[in-house]
Amino acid sequence: MTLDVVSYLKTKKTQINEHLIMLLKRTEAPKRLKKSMLYSVKAGGKRLRPILMLAVIEAFQCKTEYGMQPAAALEFVHTYSLIHDDLPAMDDDDLRRGLLTNHKKFDEATAILAGDGLLTFAFTCLAQAPFINDKVKLWLIQELANAAGSSEMIGGQMDDIQAEGKTLDIIALEKIYQKKTGRLLEFAVMAGATIANGDQSTKDNLQLFARHLGLAFQIQDDILDIEGDESMLGKPVGSDVGNKKNTYPEILGIEGAKKQLKVHFEKALDALNRTSIQHEALEGIAHFVIERHY
Amino acid sequence: MTLDVVSYLKTKKTQINEHLIMLLKRTEAPKRLKKSMLYSVKAGGKRLRPILMLAVIEAFQCKTEYGMQPAAALEFVHTYSLIHDDLPAMDDDDLRRGLLTNHKKFDEATAILAGDGLLTFAFTCLAQAPFINDKVKLWLIQELANAAGSSEMIGGQMDDIQAEGKTLDIIALEKIYQKKTGRLLEFAVMAGATIANGDQSTKDNLQLFARHLGLAFQIQDDILDIEGDESMLGKPVGSDVGNKKNTYPEILGIEGAKKQLKVHFEKALDALNRTSIQHEALEGIAHFVIERHY
Repeated sequence: MTLDVVSYLKTKKTQINEHLIMLLKRTEAPKRLKKSMLYSVKAGGKRLRPILMLAVIEAFQCKTEYGMQPAAALEFVHTYSLIHDDLPAMDDDDLRRGLLTNHKKFDEATAILAGDGLLTFAFTCLAQAPFINDKVKLWLIQELANAAGSSEMIGGQMDDIQAEGKTLDIIALEKIYQKKTGRLLEFAVMAGATIANGDQSTKDNLQLFARHLGLAFQIQDDILDIEGDESMLGKPVGSDVGNKKNTYPEILGIEGAKKQLKVHFEKALDALNRTSIQHEALEGIAHFVIERHY
Repeated sequence: MTLDVVSYLKTKKTQINEHLIMLLKRTEAPKRLKKSMLYSVKAGGKRLRPILMLAVIEAFQCKTEYGMQPAAALEFVHTYSLIHDDLPAMDDDDLRRGLLTNHKKFDEATAILAGDGLLTFAFTCLAQAPFINDKVKLWLIQELANAAGSSEMIGGQMDDIQAEGKTLDIIALEKIYQKKTGRLLEFAVMAGATIANGDQSTKDNLQLFARHLGLAFQIQDDILDIEGDESMLGKPVGSDVGNKKNTYPEILGIEGAKKQLKVHFEKALDALNRTSIQHEALEGIAHFVIERHY
């Protein structure tokens, strides 16, 4: 690859961070609530979902700026889901990305409201997205509500909680991963393709790319929870074992998990290679997903 | 008035309840999550917000069915806000409408996710609302996200929490009420007027009507918390005093609060009388709001 993925990701991340903060700063909210919303948004993260959306748009040689606000909306939804997932009643996590989780930094009530606020604000951002026509805006709203809704992301979190302490097979685990993180990654990719007005055959391949990438992403997460470096991850390793979570390494062993990671990575690249879009950056992102240390 | 308000409200409530349950039953979600969402939606309530929306649509002699899905979306948002407000970290209430609150019936994690699910589903309902053109759909989405967002409803809940134990003046309290409940009632009325494609002058008067009605509603809530009948309310009276909440009777005394109730009721009716729409049902609803015992 001629593209420098590391600097590509860094540039995009900076661009997205600026946009997220610009949008959020414009909103009115009680001081403490706004501070709490900004805290979790600023806490960073890989920004994988918005970067994917922008990279797809660029792969179609469409303008990046068309996707900035939809990409921000998606990241607000992702951030809200992390705030609520970290709550004591859910995963009860104290650290996220090396910082105190929202309810630890503020309090539970503020964290619940900050999550609610970010989720709601995502729909404001989509409804007001510049450059996007009404039909596409409504598609984005419907698809994001679906991907983040009770049948997908929220449902996946519910399944995940209910599966704690139980032994799942790989099919059941894959289904939870698909719902919990897969569908939002898929939305990122398909939103990019829809904004760029891509053709159906390319969209079909991109959907396959997104599905395999989503699973690869989650498997690498599982592997990092065992083999990762706490200082890179910004959270303790081994929390999945502690929380009695079902994971790929738990079911398939670490080598089996690594094999599956490779299978999904290759299937993702195969799908990408069947398209005629400029997919260098997307390929780079896929490499990052399976090679990352955080 | 020739219109029988009691039977009007009953008919509309039945119609709305059926629609809410029909929409929710169609969604896919893990069994326990769906049960929890249905539980709070079925727990009932006055359905004041959706009834207001439908009554405005009918006042313009537009078809009721045009408003059914947007009205349901609004009620889902209202229901989600009650589930989250009742949580231990917030108002910590055990009873709502004579039934266990969601987190008492299920558990905190499920209640948080059920709230998230209902909020998200509201936007699905708006994006897919039949009979509504794309422009109006986007208006509804933007306005509902705004009214329910961190600057309004969620912000009002934050303000309310932060004001506990502090002494507010009536201006500050009115502002919290405006944000916490007023804006969603206003949305109900303005959404009805927008769906019915009402003229600007009528819309302006309806907005005034909604604002005064919203305050009257909240003042009556405060009065019922002192003078109400627990068996009618379905929750203990005196909880505002127990929670050190600022209320109209707390600041103005019970007689002062009743006087303000009358002032806002009359201003609401004045605004309504300046319109030329068929406002008999709306007038009936205003009477219900200040005369209700629950």
